[in-house]
Amino acid sequence: MTAYPKMTREELQKEYAAVSQKFQKLKEQGLKLNMARGKPGKIQLDMVSDIFDVFKTPEDYVSDGVDCRNYGELSGLPAAKRLFAEILGCKPEQVFVGGNASLQLMYDTISKAVTHGMLHSEKPWGKEEHIKWLCPAPGYDRHFKVTESFGFELVTIPMTADGPDMDAVEQAIKDSSVKGMWNVPKYSNPQGIVYSDETIRRIASMKPAAPDFMLMWDNAYCIHELEGNFLPFKDILSECAKYGNADMVFEYASTSKVTLPGAGISCMACSEANMAYLTKLMGIQIISYDKVNQQRHVLYLKDRAHTLELMKRHAGVLGPKFRAVTDTLDREIAPLEIGSWTHPKGGYFVSFDGMTGTAKRTLALCKEAGVTMTGAGATFPYGVDPNDSNIRIAPSLPPVEELTSAVAVFCVCAKMAAIEKLLEK
Amino acid sequence: MTAYPKMTREELQKEYAAVSQKFQKLKEQGLKLNMARGKPGKIQLDMVSDIFDVFKTPEDYVSDGVDCRNYGELSGLPAAKRLFAEILGCKPEQVFVGGNASLQLMYDTISKAVTHGMLHSEKPWGKEEHIKWLCPAPGYDRHFKVTESFGFELVTIPMTADGPDMDAVEQAIKDSSVKGMWNVPKYSNPQGIVYSDETIRRIASMKPAAPDFMLMWDNAYCIHELEGNFLPFKDILSECAKYGNADMVFEYASTSKVTLPGAGISCMACSEANMAYLTKLMGIQIISYDKVNQQRHVLYLKDRAHTLELMKRHAGVLGPKFRAVTDTLDREIAPLEIGSWTHPKGGYFVSFDGMTGTAKRTLALCKEAGVTMTGAGATFPYGVDPNDSNIRIAPSLPPVEELTSAVAVFCVCAKMAAIEKLLEK
Repeated sequence: MTAYPKMTREELQKEYAAVSQKFQKLKEQGLKLNMARGKPGKIQLDMVSDIFDVFKTPEDYVSDGVDCRNYGELSGLPAAKRLFAEILGCKPEQVFVGGNASLQLMYDTISKAVTHGMLHSEKPWGKEEHIKWLCPAPGYDRHFKVTESFGFELVTIPMTADGPDMDAVEQAIKDSSVKGMWNVPKYSNPQGIVYSDETIRRIASMKPAAPDFMLMWDNAYCIHELEGNFLPFKDILSECAKYGNADMVFEYASTSKVTLPGAGISCMACSEANMAYLTKLMGIQIISYDKVNQQRHVLYLKDRAHTLELMKRHAGVLGPKFRAVTDTLDREIAPLEIGSWTHPKGGYFVSFDGMTGTAKRTLALCKEAGVTMTGAGATFPYGVDPNDSNIRIAPSLPPVEELTSAVAVFCVCAKMAAIEKLLEK
Repeated sequence: MTAYPKMTREELQKEYAAVSQKFQKLKEQGLKLNMARGKPGKIQLDMVSDIFDVFKTPEDYVSDGVDCRNYGELSGLPAAKRLFAEILGCKPEQVFVGGNASLQLMYDTISKAVTHGMLHSEKPWGKEEHIKWLCPAPGYDRHFKVTESFGFELVTIPMTADGPDMDAVEQAIKDSSVKGMWNVPKYSNPQGIVYSDETIRRIASMKPAAPDFMLMWDNAYCIHELEGNFLPFKDILSECAKYGNADMVFEYASTSKVTLPGAGISCMACSEANMAYLTKLMGIQIISYDKVNQQRHVLYLKDRAHTLELMKRHAGVLGPKFRAVTDTLDREIAPLEIGSWTHPKGGYFVSFDGMTGTAKRTLALCKEAGVTMTGAGATFPYGVDPNDSNIRIAPSLPPVEELTSAVAVFCVCAKMAAIEKLLEK
């Protein structure tokens, strides 16, 4: 197959007719497929639903002498702290165990910066004139929305193969109104990029002008390999402490894609000083998060090694789905030279970059053919992709057969959008 | 026994010697008793722990076609909304189902008023010069702490036997900086007062100067009778709507004292317009609260009638504890004319009013004798009881035998403090 950019107008028109015909046929099938969000599939849910059977005896409700069924223990069950600390490589006393959503812990931390200020703030951020926030992009739309919602100005930082462009970051943080930065350091959303050691060193040793700069470290996919062995990662808390930045970092993780999405447990890890400051504020908001669910997870996941075994089983389900996507793209799209995509080793997404100005059109066509995808632009601040080229593919939810159909539709749509763009010239 | 205020100095001194001797003996027992917080006792926890066995078949994870184990349904499972709506007497579409803590939903609603403003706000409250908040007192310390934490000025409203002093409320809300009011309308914390129909009518028909006045209606004890039959209550949402105040009210409830404290589910009920506004903001913070726990509660509690049956069983445990407290006070303290207390028909507290200037001293003595109580002043804004007389007694946690000891200690301490005060004169 000739690459599209090398085709003559006539060849392109002919190809367009052929691809359009395929599109019509797919459309007539009345498909209803979804590759929009990083939702685990039913097989994964069923695989872990024995978590509901862990309470066998009355003693199972007691953990370190605490009856997990009653009020108390604001920062979480000690055993749940130990479990997260072992996974993240930090200390148990640096862990606050939350509810079913790490997003909520992230939102609440930033919300408290706005209403009360952080440990090293001069005043609540709500009293500041203007606040800017660094957003490595492509990135996670829900992160961007949180900071947008509080009226912060979102500053795009380009992603590189090693993580955020650190030259751009180091330049940006000279501005004292730059108060924080989003990060998904391992298997970034959507590209699956793993921050390099050098990137992490430069981040941990940053000297932001803002004394209350918040390094938001969403370690959402810290043990979420799709294939191969577990890839170790650095404990960002001790890395930051090494450079005198102990209070700069807030790390988050959850079991949303370990046990159950929306019914797992989450955590925030931070310095002891931040923990003392924040637990005082959090004690106004809640008596404690659900410790029964924390205990359920402690009994079910046991420890890091046992949790990693479970993650291998998730990989066994997810790996083939991801390969179905990337294999099809490699076969159908690569020869046409109209896009590039990631081959992630972990995480929940494949990031596709089509020709400039084709993402929206591709997704509009997908929708027409019954395939729902994450909205174009979602991976950029304010939902605007300056190149209109990035598309986030989420292969986790559909069963493999459905996924194969969905990717086939996607390829046809990407082809049509590319030819239309080339014919515009 | 002569009433203390009628005793001569000599009689008082003799009595003090006798009471002090009892105190010393109690102290020597090295007691460790707790009547500090409204924690359910272990019998109550054990009584409902079969809630963990409700998932029998894979179909149990599916509710109205929604797999409760996956992401989605921001405002909660429809069946959980129906359950709360039936209990509260409102419509399911007026219900947002939260996590394990209604306190968190209350905090978050007010937090959003500060950071974003409410539906009828001119601007976020964080941009307002000064905000005042009405606090019927004695009241719930955690309520007061929430509004204090955001820097609002707390305005004390006296409680009457019918609820808040509505003359004082109607005067206060003429000030447009008065933005809201706390309420526990049924079995108020700590007095167990049930708002009268007339109080509720006056509240629902208020015309506050602030267009975004928030009537915080914490229906924490709406089905929490200690004895006798369920006492019906008015649906505050339709009451407010009747007077054109549909968007003024935010109602909260939870199963913290129906199933498990800290592991139950909670809800917020409000007008459809508020629901639309708030779910947009809450969708930034969380994808949904734990729907598995919502489904667990739907399967376990079934409906209002079945839930009320369970509440009768709780009353069977709690009733004797409350009677142990009030019977002892009636017998030991009443003849002395040094205090008065409530005989609540529901809720979780007995409110004790000692002689002016004796509450702190009484509690200091209790502490010395190994009995932990809610701090003096806690039931008033800023933790300051102007009369230093109110003490909140929480009889729910200790087993009856321990409770009997604890109340005996309390009576001795109240007597000592009263005599000391009388001898000061």
